[in-house]
Amino acid sequence: MKKECDFGLFVMGGGPGDPELITLKGYRVLKRAEVILYDNLINKELLDIAPKDCKLVYVGKQPYGNYTPQEVIHELIKEYTETHRVVIRLKGGDPFIFGRGFEEVLFAEKHGIPVHYIPGISSMQASGLSGIPLTHRGVSESMWIITGTKKDGSLSNDLRCAMNSAATVVIYMGMKKLAEIAGVYKDAGLGGTPAAIIQHASLPQQKKVVCRAEDLPAAAAGAGLTYPAIVIVGDVVGIKGAA
Amino acid sequence: MKKECDFGLFVMGGGPGDPELITLKGYRVLKRAEVILYDNLINKELLDIAPKDCKLVYVGKQPYGNYTPQEVIHELIKEYTETHRVVIRLKGGDPFIFGRGFEEVLFAEKHGIPVHYIPGISSMQASGLSGIPLTHRGVSESMWIITGTKKDGSLSNDLRCAMNSAATVVIYMGMKKLAEIAGVYKDAGLGGTPAAIIQHASLPQQKKVVCRAEDLPAAAAGAGLTYPAIVIVGDVVGIKGAA
Repeated sequence: MKKECDFGLFVMGGGPGDPELITLKGYRVLKRAEVILYDNLINKELLDIAPKDCKLVYVGKQPYGNYTPQEVIHELIKEYTETHRVVIRLKGGDPFIFGRGFEEVLFAEKHGIPVHYIPGISSMQASGLSGIPLTHRGVSESMWIITGTKKDGSLSNDLRCAMNSAATVVIYMGMKKLAEIAGVYKDAGLGGTPAAIIQHASLPQQKKVVCRAEDLPAAAAGAGLTYPAIVIVGDVVGIKGAA
Repeated sequence: MKKECDFGLFVMGGGPGDPELITLKGYRVLKRAEVILYDNLINKELLDIAPKDCKLVYVGKQPYGNYTPQEVIHELIKEYTETHRVVIRLKGGDPFIFGRGFEEVLFAEKHGIPVHYIPGISSMQASGLSGIPLTHRGVSESMWIITGTKKDGSLSNDLRCAMNSAATVVIYMGMKKLAEIAGVYKDAGLGGTPAAIIQHASLPQQKKVVCRAEDLPAAAAGAGLTYPAIVIVGDVVGIKGAA
């Protein structure tokens, strides 16, 4: 671990939603933030932790909608770290789990900007707050975390591999692919595998539906669930526990 | 999410090592802990957050050594929640990622004990503090988190499946299986895949070695790395970045 220095770019995970699920380290750095470049997915209450005169810059990416290009974010990082000491890049979840945070780290290093990484609780971990553990002795011995939306828009081939394993399958950004995901399971004769969709995990408005893998699209529509949400497929969904 | 009530059993993740990587929620509950049942893997500095008169009970499991049977931990949970209002079960990393935390949740629910889950930063996430992101656009589109030590002691078959995918493979509790892991990669003609072992991630004494998958046992021996440690295999290891 790099000895923490007190200035530069802080690439920070804001956690799954509940502002209390930020790390203590993240909280302390937010307290002395001068600029925050923030994501669409963070809880806006986190911005209230910063000092009153902190500059708040929205650089969010709406899923399937408007977004700030990565190159623009890089330029803002360069610009603000030249004039301010504590610049935070605040992202939902963990910046290194489907967050493109490492691209920003590489950019900062290339330009000689001191850069610090502060991990965050990833959205999938909030499944526990919905009564679904990611692993459970005798039920699941591994977990496969996959993105439903590849760079080229296609569904990852890894899903076909994952569903034939004993892994809990967790799909990020998969809500537009539910029909395709359901089809892949059904075609493999695994349509009956327990599945769940969790939206707004860890927040008061958290919603969950439980169904069979082949019924994912209907379940989402029935419950009015939309993106962003986490899809979990595997026997851990069926364990009776906290709801 | 259950509305948080202020007493009962709190199954809490202590994070990967750095005590500042605990969540704000975890910190606040530790501040009013009456009993803490703690793990071998937590940073003992976390215990100092609790009030002076908090009862500290070690129920750790030494890897491959002495351990407190799960049934005994369950009995202690029952006993202490009958006489104290804030009983914390403090585990390293995240309790629901290879932590058996959900077994304790199920036990508590069965006995009518109010139970709360507070996720923690999982050890694998501290890989970012060693300059290795878990995913990276164009390099890895999924990650497979696996335990090296199954209930029956064998290596999970999922590893054979995972290594033929585009996933970053993360192996928990795999240090006694390094020869077997290396062999599986080598036999498949994938011995040259980039790999890393990270010990004490997020702590000042953090150590990392980078090698080829087939050289994992030699690399661990050469660097004096032992368990517990995280093994990462995949192209994300080779990205040049923060060290």
